Amino acid sequence: MKITVLTLFPEYFETLLGSSIIGRAYAAGKFEFECIDFRQFTKEKHGHVDDTPYGGGAGMVLMCQPVIDALNSVRTPESTVILLSPQGKTFKHAVARDLALKEHLIFICGHYEGFDERIRSYVDMQLSLGDFVLTGGEPACMVMCDAILRLLPGTIRQDSFEDDSFSNGLLEYPQYTRPEIYDGKKVPDVLLSGHHANIKKWRRQMALKNTWLHRPDLLETADLDEEDRTFLSKMIENEDQL
Amino acid sequence: MKITVLTLFPEYFETLLGSSIIGRAYAAGKFEFECIDFRQFTKEKHGHVDDTPYGGGAGMVLMCQPVIDALNSVRTPESTVILLSPQGKTFKHAVARDLALKEHLIFICGHYEGFDERIRSYVDMQLSLGDFVLTGGEPACMVMCDAILRLLPGTIRQDSFEDDSFSNGLLEYPQYTRPEIYDGKKVPDVLLSGHHANIKKWRRQMALKNTWLHRPDLLETADLDEEDRTFLSKMIENEDQL
Repeated sequence: MKITVLTLFPEYFETLLGSSIIGRAYAAGKFEFECIDFRQFTKEKHGHVDDTPYGGGAGMVLMCQPVIDALNSVRTPESTVILLSPQGKTFKHAVARDLALKEHLIFICGHYEGFDERIRSYVDMQLSLGDFVLTGGEPACMVMCDAILRLLPGTIRQDSFEDDSFSNGLLEYPQYTRPEIYDGKKVPDVLLSGHHANIKKWRRQMALKNTWLHRPDLLETADLDEEDRTFLSKMIENEDQL
Repeated sequence: MKITVLTLFPEYFETLLGSSIIGRAYAAGKFEFECIDFRQFTKEKHGHVDDTPYGGGAGMVLMCQPVIDALNSVRTPESTVILLSPQGKTFKHAVARDLALKEHLIFICGHYEGFDERIRSYVDMQLSLGDFVLTGGEPACMVMCDAILRLLPGTIRQDSFEDDSFSNGLLEYPQYTRPEIYDGKKVPDVLLSGHHANIKKWRRQMALKNTWLHRPDLLETADLDEEDRTFLSKMIENEDQL
């Protein structure tokens, strides 16, 4: 896996590679990472990469030429080119999982108030992190890289994935660690019982309950068995007791 | 506005304050920002902040004590305490706008595989960036800080907000800058016409069209007038010509 980021702010990504888990995987050679400052590709004589919008209005618009020339310098038939844009498909766990299987990802980070519309026709997909506006694509790109790189073999222990929120379609069950009583709040008895089957059942039920309380939409696509469905119906019947 | 981040990786946030737009606002004193490494609050003799989960299982769980003691050291009656968690409410433009009005935001970034469930009872709200899993709360927190700080008076020009995606409930209209023809692709004639009323109308219609094509759900809550509705019905009638 190789990731190339086209950005005006390559230094933004030093943090990602210096961070604990992703940084360790990078140091161990689990993936390649490069940032290309597309300013170095501009043919504008003063080194500008943006210009005023046709039709008037506030702000500056990124030009096609430096971005597309930078893209062409790194793109190969194995590349998947991703433009970060509010119009894009929303980034989710399933998208991260698909992208983690690709050979070469190229992310284009916009900045300033916008970019020339024609840039969209050169990319394979557009992704959005969510319904909010950022000063640039860089923080969103960092988040996507973190979510994708985390899934590469060898980044984190494989057994850590199994109970991830979203990976099995549910939110996580509650976790507790020492002490047994903190500020008057006690760890649930079942977790102290040593009875593994009961603990497993309780955790599954709590994941179902958490999901139903906070993200009922996830239950529509979660992988549920007969026992899960029975538990959920009973819980919903007794809703006033939750 | 002051932001305090409780994290094990304070260095992660240097990037945010060094970045162009947010960095300039910080240098100009538009907001205060501090990171507190809650490891310094631990009473565990080896300096650990995490421990194995009650009931068994992979991974380590953040303990209450260092997190809550760090929180208590900075919390005041003016603080809004936010825990980053997949169970939280999804972070959107409207949330960023609400939070930009607060006096003091405290973000708690989890790390490792999870945190003690009892920590949730000490916070004012839980926020999630989206349906994916990260190596820690830090990248998500950076994104939220960027979206919030961008909205503070003086961070970016006020007229830049007006056409933001989401701020008026719609995606943005397409932007173009020089040259008029790039790689055979021409700027729409209306933008070269100099006719301001036509340009304004075209941009509104393109914002509506973009939103309808890529995020029709946004139209349910967008602020639309009679002319917008007429345009949308006509466009939907002639859908095959799009």
